[in-house]
Amino acid sequence: MKILIINGPNLNLLGTREPDIYGKRTFDSYFQELRQLYPQHELSYFQSNHEGAIIDKLHEDGFSVAGIVLNAGAYTHTSVAIHDAIKGIKCPVIEVHISNIHNREEFRHKSFIAPACKGSVVGLGFDSYRLAIEHLIHPE
Amino acid sequence: MKILIINGPNLNLLGTREPDIYGKRTFDSYFQELRQLYPQHELSYFQSNHEGAIIDKLHEDGFSVAGIVLNAGAYTHTSVAIHDAIKGIKCPVIEVHISNIHNREEFRHKSFIAPACKGSVVGLGFDSYRLAIEHLIHPE
Amino acid sequence: MKILIINGPNLNLLGTREPDIYGKRTFDSYFQELRQLYPQHELSYFQSNHEGAIIDKLHEDGFSVAGIVLNAGAYTHTSVAIHDAIKGIKCPVIEVHISNIHNREEFRHKSFIAPACKGSVVGLGFDSYRLAIEHLIHPE
Amino acid sequence: MKILIINGPNLNLLGTREPDIYGKRTFDSYFQELRQLYPQHELSYFQSNHEGAIIDKLHEDGFSVAGIVLNAGAYTHTSVAIHDAIKGIKCPVIEVHISNIHNREEFRHKSFIAPACKGSVVGLGFDSYRLAIEHLIHPE
Amino acid sequence: MKILIINGPNLNLLGTREPDIYGKRTFDSYFQELRQLYPQHELSYFQSNHEGAIIDKLHEDGFSVAGIVLNAGAYTHTSVAIHDAIKGIKCPVIEVHISNIHNREEFRHKSFIAPACKGSVVGLGFDSYRLAIEHLIHPE
Amino acid sequence: MKILIINGPNLNLLGTREPDIYGKRTFDSYFQELRQLYPQHELSYFQSNHEGAIIDKLHEDGFSVAGIVLNAGAYTHTSVAIHDAIKGIKCPVIEVHISNIHNREEFRHKSFIAPACKGSVVGLGFDSYRLAIEHLIHPE
Amino acid sequence: MKILIINGPNLNLLGTREPDIYGKRTFDSYFQELRQLYPQHELSYFQSNHEGAIIDKLHEDGFSVAGIVLNAGAYTHTSVAIHDAIKGIKCPVIEVHISNIHNREEFRHKSFIAPACKGSVVGLGFDSYRLAIEHLIHPE
Amino acid sequence: MKILIINGPNLNLLGTREPDIYGKRTFDSYFQELRQLYPQHELSYFQSNHEGAIIDKLHEDGFSVAGIVLNAGAYTHTSVAIHDAIKGIKCPVIEVHISNIHNREEFRHKSFIAPACKGSVVGLGFDSYRLAIEHLIHPE
Amino acid sequence: MKILIINGPNLNLLGTREPDIYGKRTFDSYFQELRQLYPQHELSYFQSNHEGAIIDKLHEDGFSVAGIVLNAGAYTHTSVAIHDAIKGIKCPVIEVHISNIHNREEFRHKSFIAPACKGSVVGLGFDSYRLAIEHLIHPE
Amino acid sequence: MKILIINGPNLNLLGTREPDIYGKRTFDSYFQELRQLYPQHELSYFQSNHEGAIIDKLHEDGFSVAGIVLNAGAYTHTSVAIHDAIKGIKCPVIEVHISNIHNREEFRHKSFIAPACKGSVVGLGFDSYRLAIEHLIHPE
Amino acid sequence: MKILIINGPNLNLLGTREPDIYGKRTFDSYFQELRQLYPQHELSYFQSNHEGAIIDKLHEDGFSVAGIVLNAGAYTHTSVAIHDAIKGIKCPVIEVHISNIHNREEFRHKSFIAPACKGSVVGLGFDSYRLAIEHLIHPE
Amino acid sequence: MKILIINGPNLNLLGTREPDIYGKRTFDSYFQELRQLYPQHELSYFQSNHEGAIIDKLHEDGFSVAGIVLNAGAYTHTSVAIHDAIKGIKCPVIEVHISNIHNREEFRHKSFIAPACKGSVVGLGFDSYRLAIEHLIHPE
Repeated sequence: MKILIINGPNLNLLGTREPDIYGKRTFDSYFQELRQLYPQHELSYFQSNHEGAIIDKLHEDGFSVAGIVLNAGAYTHTSVAIHDAIKGIKCPVIEVHISNIHNREEFRHKSFIAPACKGSVVGLGFDSYRLAIEHLIHPE
Repeated sequence: MKILIINGPNLNLLGTREPDIYGKRTFDSYFQELRQLYPQHELSYFQSNHEGAIIDKLHEDGFSVAGIVLNAGAYTHTSVAIHDAIKGIKCPVIEVHISNIHNREEFRHKSFIAPACKGSVVGLGFDSYRLAIEHLIHPE
Repeated sequence: MKILIINGPNLNLLGTREPDIYGKRTFDSYFQELRQLYPQHELSYFQSNHEGAIIDKLHEDGFSVAGIVLNAGAYTHTSVAIHDAIKGIKCPVIEVHISNIHNREEFRHKSFIAPACKGSVVGLGFDSYRLAIEHLIHPE
Repeated sequence: MKILIINGPNLNLLGTREPDIYGKRTFDSYFQELRQLYPQHELSYFQSNHEGAIIDKLHEDGFSVAGIVLNAGAYTHTSVAIHDAIKGIKCPVIEVHISNIHNREEFRHKSFIAPACKGSVVGLGFDSYRLAIEHLIHPE
Repeated sequence: MKILIINGPNLNLLGTREPDIYGKRTFDSYFQELRQLYPQHELSYFQSNHEGAIIDKLHEDGFSVAGIVLNAGAYTHTSVAIHDAIKGIKCPVIEVHISNIHNREEFRHKSFIAPACKGSVVGLGFDSYRLAIEHLIHPE
Repeated sequence: MKILIINGPNLNLLGTREPDIYGKRTFDSYFQELRQLYPQHELSYFQSNHEGAIIDKLHEDGFSVAGIVLNAGAYTHTSVAIHDAIKGIKCPVIEVHISNIHNREEFRHKSFIAPACKGSVVGLGFDSYRLAIEHLIHPE
Repeated sequence: MKILIINGPNLNLLGTREPDIYGKRTFDSYFQELRQLYPQHELSYFQSNHEGAIIDKLHEDGFSVAGIVLNAGAYTHTSVAIHDAIKGIKCPVIEVHISNIHNREEFRHKSFIAPACKGSVVGLGFDSYRLAIEHLIHPE
Repeated sequence: MKILIINGPNLNLLGTREPDIYGKRTFDSYFQELRQLYPQHELSYFQSNHEGAIIDKLHEDGFSVAGIVLNAGAYTHTSVAIHDAIKGIKCPVIEVHISNIHNREEFRHKSFIAPACKGSVVGLGFDSYRLAIEHLIHPE
Repeated sequence: MKILIINGPNLNLLGTREPDIYGKRTFDSYFQELRQLYPQHELSYFQSNHEGAIIDKLHEDGFSVAGIVLNAGAYTHTSVAIHDAIKGIKCPVIEVHISNIHNREEFRHKSFIAPACKGSVVGLGFDSYRLAIEHLIHPE
Repeated sequence: MKILIINGPNLNLLGTREPDIYGKRTFDSYFQELRQLYPQHELSYFQSNHEGAIIDKLHEDGFSVAGIVLNAGAYTHTSVAIHDAIKGIKCPVIEVHISNIHNREEFRHKSFIAPACKGSVVGLGFDSYRLAIEHLIHPE
Repeated sequence: MKILIINGPNLNLLGTREPDIYGKRTFDSYFQELRQLYPQHELSYFQSNHEGAIIDKLHEDGFSVAGIVLNAGAYTHTSVAIHDAIKGIKCPVIEVHISNIHNREEFRHKSFIAPACKGSVVGLGFDSYRLAIEHLIHPE
Repeated sequence: MKILIINGPNLNLLGTREPDIYGKRTFDSYFQELRQLYPQHELSYFQSNHEGAIIDKLHEDGFSVAGIVLNAGAYTHTSVAIHDAIKGIKCPVIEVHISNIHNREEFRHKSFIAPACKGSVVGLGFDSYRLAIEHLIHPE
C-alpha cells in the first residue's frame, strides 16, 4: 500500500520552530520511525512552503496512492485551492495537526480543508500521523 | 490500563438513527470488538442523553482511569459545562466523532469541547474510537 | 391513533408563571379538554425540565406513536440534541409555542428544533396544541 | 364570519412551480375544498405578486373581515411595509407557509411579518391554511 | 416654486394606524394647512403603497419640481431602488419621518434612502414636513 | 428563437441617470441595434419599476420564450420574490449588469437573483446584454 | 423663550476645517444672523471639545431653557454619556448635523444620541440649526 | 429568613478543579462558615450538574424562600431555560460568580441568566456568596 | 482604611434623573449613611462627568487608598482609557452599578471596565456600593 | 489582437475533477476550438496552481496583450495579491467562471478579484471564455 | 523646525504602569534625550488624560508646528473626535505606539486615528517617537 | 550588521503600478540610496510574488541576519503562513508599508503579519524602510 505524507508551510522547521508548541524533534527522524513501523507499506514524504506545490503534489500522486496524510500547516486556515485539489483527486485524504488548533488563536479554529477530507486527527503530537496511517491501512 | 468510552445524546440510537450518516451497526457490537482488540486493557462504556449525567460520569471516573474517549454528540456544539468538567478532571480526554462534522450543518462546525481535550479524531467512522484508544495506550 | 404531547422546561408552571404572557390556566385542565375533544384517539402527556429526559421520551415513544406535539420551551432555542433526537425517530413531530416567540426577546427568534420538525404552530395560545393534533389526525 | 386569504408572490404558480417543494395541486382547487369545509363562513381569496397590492388589500379588508390568513411568500423575508400594514389594521392576521421555511435557505429563516401577526402555521402543506382558519373561527 | 410631497406605504392610514406613534390626525387635513401656510408656492401630494409607483412618480416629477419631500415609510429601510431613483433625478430630495425612527425597532435605524437625499428631518411629527419645505424654499 | 429582455427599476432613465456610471445612451437605441444584430431571432423588451410587474412578466413569458436576459437593477440586491419567480419558470434566465457592481457600494455586491439564474454577465456595459443573448443562442 | 445651541468637538474650526464638507463660514457669524432672525427669543451658544463639558452644560441649562439644539460632532457616534445626559434633563433636545452623515464614513452612520433626542435635522448645512429652532418655537 | 444557595455544574469540584482560578477550598467548608455567620437565618444548599435539576429546585423552593443565591456555573452562558425558571418564580435571585468571568474566555462574558436576576456579584471569590446573602437580608 | 468612591457621568443627577430606574434619593444623602455605617474607615467621594478627570483621580489616589469603588456610569460601556487607568494603579477597584445593566439596552451589556477590575456588584441599588466596601474591608 | 487566457488552481484537472460541476471535457480541447473560432487573433493559454506564478504571468503579459481572460479558480475567493496585480497592469482583465459560484458554498460567493476587473462572465460553462473574448474583441 | 509630541491617557504613568508592557523608564527622561538628539529643532511635549484637552492642543498648535507625533493611548481605539481634529488641522500627524497593539487585546487592534494620520510607527518602544521625528525632519 | 529587506507581491512593479498611491520611483533606485546611507552595514534585498518563496527566504536568512524589514504587500492581509514563518525564525522582523493601509479598502486594514513582528512602520512612503533599518541598527 502506497501512502503519501504531505507537510505544509513551516513544518520543515519542526525541532527548531516554537518548541513549546511543536516539541524538539525533527520530522525526518520521526518519518524514519514510521517507516520502520510499517515495513510492508510504501511511505513517501513531501514538504513544501508553497501552496501551489502542495496542490501540484496532490494532483500528481492523488490518483495513484492509497491515501494521503496532510498537515497543511497555516494553509489549513486560508486555502480554498487545497480544498478543491483534495476534492479533485481520487484517494482519501486525512487531515492531521500536531498541536490542538482549537485552543490556539481564533484564526486557527477554522479549517478550510476539513470538509474536503475524509476526517481528521488533531492535537495528538506526531502520533497524529501514525493514527491517520493506521486508519488508511485498516479503515475499519 | 483503564479506559472509559462516553457516548452522548442519541448515540444509543446508532444502527437505527440516520443510517446514511451513521451506518447500520450498533455501538454495543462495536464495543465488543474493541474489547477483543485490547484484551490486556480494561475498557468500560457509558452512554447518556443527559448533559448532567455525562458531567457526573466525567467527575466519577476522571481521577481514576488512564484516559477517556468522549463522543459528546450534539452537546459538543453547545456545552460549556462539559468543557469545564474536562478541565476539572485529571486524565486526558480525546474527543471523537463518527461523521465528519465539518461537512455537515454550520452549527456542527464549532466544538466547545475541543479546546479542553488533548486532541480529537473526527470523521473516521467507528474507527475514530479505536484510534483514540490507540493513542491513549501508546501516546507516542 | 396514539399521539404524545411533550412539554419542556417551566411549562409545569403554566397558570403560575408570567401570566401576562402565558395566561392563568394550567396545562392539565387544558389536556383534559383535549382528551374530551378527541375521544377516539389516545392522547398522552409528558413534561420535564430535563433536556435528557425529553430526549429519552422521544426515543421511547418515537417509534410507536403516530405523531408528537412538542413544545420544547426554552430548549427550543439552545438544543441541538433534541434536534438530533427528532431526526433519529420515525414519527412526525410538530413544534408548538403558546406565545408568539417572534415578538419576544431576540434569543427566542431562533429555533434549533424547527428544521427537524415537519412544521410548527406558533403564538396561538393553548390552541396551538389542538391545531397540531388536528393536523396529525387529518394531515390533509 | 368573513375570512380573507391572501397569497403573495409566485403562489399563483402553485401546481407548476418547484413541485418537489410545493406539490402539484393548484391553490384554486384547494380553495374550493376549503369553502366546502366551511359553508357557514364567507371565505374570500386574493393573490398578487405586488407588495403594494397586498398592502392595499390589507387596508381595504383589514377593518371589516374577522381575520386574515396571509402567506406573503418571499415578501415574508424582506417586507417591513407589510409588517406595518398588519400593525395598522384591526383584525388578527395569521401567517402561514406551505413548506417548512426553517429547513430551506438561510434567508428564508427570518420572517419580518411574524412579529406583527398573532401567530403562524408553518410547514404543514396546504393544511396550514385550514388550521389558521380553524383558529380564527374557534380562537379557543 | 413647485414642491412635491410623497408619502410611502401605510401613511394613508395616518389618523387610524397606531395612534400612539403617529397621532390621530389625517395627512389630508395637515396638507391643507401646509398649503395655506405657503400660498405663494405650488404644493402637490402623492401617496402610494407601491414601491414602483413611488419610483415612477420620482421620475415623472423629479426633473420639473424645485424639490421633493419624501417620507418613504417602511421602504426607507429596504429599498435600494428608491435610493437609485433619487440619485437619477435632478431636484433635491429631503427625507422626512414623523416618528423618531432611532428609538423604535432596530430594523428602522438604517435608512437606505438617506445617503441619496440632501438631508433629513426626523421625529418632529407632522412638523417634519413643514421644516423640509422651509429648507427647500430658503435653503440658507 | 424568442428571447425576452427585462430591465428593472430606473433603467428607463438610461442616458439621463448618473451618466458617469451608465453612459449617455438610451436603452431603446441600443435595443434597436440588438434587433438588427439578430434578425433571425425574435427579441422583445420589457421595463418596469415595479417588482411585482417584473414577476408577472417572468410568469407570463417564462414558459414560452427560449431564454430571458434580466437586469433587475436595484431589485438584484433585495428581491427574494424575483429569485423565486426565476426558479418557478421553465426557461433559463441570465443576469446582466451594465456597471461592475463589485466595485460600487457594499450593498450592491450581493445578488439575491444570481443563485436562481443560469449565470451572469457583469460590468461590460450594454455589451453585457449582447453576450447573454449570444449564449442563449449558442449555449456552447 | 430661551434656547441653547451646543456645538461639540472641532466645530470651533468651522470655516477652517475641511471646507469641502463644512463650508467656509464661521459659526459665530451664523449665530449672529440667527439672533437677528429671532429677536424675540433668547438664544445662547456654547462650544466645547470636552465630552464632560457638554454633559455639564446639558445639566446646567437643561432644566431652565425651553429647548436645546445639539450638534455633538464626533461624540454623536461614540458617547453613551451624552445620551444619558439628554435623558436625565427636562427640556427637549434636537440633534443637528451640518453635513449628511449618512453618505460619509460608515462609523458616522450610527448616532448614539438620536434615540435620546426628540428628533433630528441632518445634512441641511447651517440651516439645520434654524429649522431646529423653528420647531422648538412652533412645535406644531 | 430562609435563603437557598444553588451551585451549578462542576462546582462540586471546588478545591480540586483548576485551583489557579478557583482556589483550594471546598464549598462545604465555606458553607459551614456562612452558617455560623448568619445563625439567625436558615441557609440551605443545593448542587447539581444537571440543568433540569437546577430548574426543578428553583421551582420547588422559589415560592417559599426569601431569596436565592445562584452560581449557575457554565449554564450561566448557555441556559435560556434557567433564565425562564427564574422569571417564573416569586423570590429574588442573585447571580454570583467566584472568578471574574469578564477577564476569562469570550464565551464566559455573556450571561443568559443576568437579565432575569435582581443583580449579580462577580469575581470576589467565595465572598461573592456572603455579599449576596448580605443584600437579601438587608436589601437597603 | 481609606476607601474612595468614584461616580461617573450623570450620577450627579441621582434623585432627579430617570427616577423609574435610579430612584429618588440623592447620592450625597446615601454617602452620609455609608460614613455612619463605617465610622472606623475613611471614606471619600468624587464625581465627575469628565472621563479625563476620572482617570486623573484614579492616578492621584490609586497608589494610596486601600480600594476604590467605581461606578463609571456610561463610560463603563465605552472607555478603554479608564480600563487602562485601573490596570495602571496599585489598589483593587470594584465596579458597581445601581441598576441591572443586563436587562437594559444592548449597548449597556458590555463593560470595558470589568476585565480590569477585581470584580463587580451590579443591580442591587445603592446597596451595591455598601457591598463593594464590605468586600474591600473583609476581602474574605 | 493578442489575448491571454489564464486558468488558476485545479483547472488543469478539468475533465477529471468533479464532473458533475465542471463537465467531462478537458480545457485543452476547448482551447483548440476557441483558436479555430478566432483564427485572426492570437490566443495564448497559461495554467498554474501557484498564486505567485499567476501574478508573474499577469505582470509579464499585462503590458503587451490586448486583454486577459482570467479564471482564478479558488484564488478568486482569497487572493488580494492577484487583485493588486490586475490593478497594476495596463490591459483589461475579464473574470470568468465555468460554474455559477453564487449557488455553491458560501465561501465562493465573494470574489476578491471582481472589483479589479473590468467585468465578469459567470456560470455559462466553457462558453464563459468565448463570451469574454467576444467582448475583448468587440468591446462595443 | 517645531515639533510637538502629544501623549494621551495614562502615559503619564510610564515607568510605573504595567512595566512588563511599557518598561520602567519615565517619558520625561526620554524626552530630555530626544531634545539632546535634535538640538537644532524645537521639540515640545504635552500630556493629558482628557480627550478634549488633546483636541484643544491639536487645534492650538496644529497650524503652527511642522509636525505632531501623537500617541493617543487608549483614545486611539475609541475617539472619532481626535480623528476629526487631525483632519481639521494643517500639519502632518504621525501616530506612534510603544507596544505592538496588534498582539494585545482585540479591542486594541483597531485605530480610529490611523486613517487621519500620515502614517504610524508601532511597537518599537520609545524609539517609535524618535523614528516619527526622524521622518518629520527628513520626510524622504 | 546584516539586514535583509523582503518585498512581497506586485512591489516589483513600483514605479509603474498605481503611481497615485505608490509614486513613480523604482525600488531598485531607492535601494541603492539606502546602501549609500548605511555603508557600514550589509543590506540585501529580495522580492517575490510567491508566498512560498517569501517563507523560504525567511527560513534561509532568518537565523543569520540581524534583522528583516518586510513589506509583505497583499499577503499582509491574507497570510497566516508568513505569520508562522516569522514566529519560527530568530531575528526580529519589522513590517513596513509604503502607503497608509488604514485609509484604503477595508480588507487592507487587517494585518495577519503584525502580531508576529516586533513592530511596524506604515504610510511614510519609501522612508518607512529607512526608519525600520534605523531601528534595527539602534534599537533604542
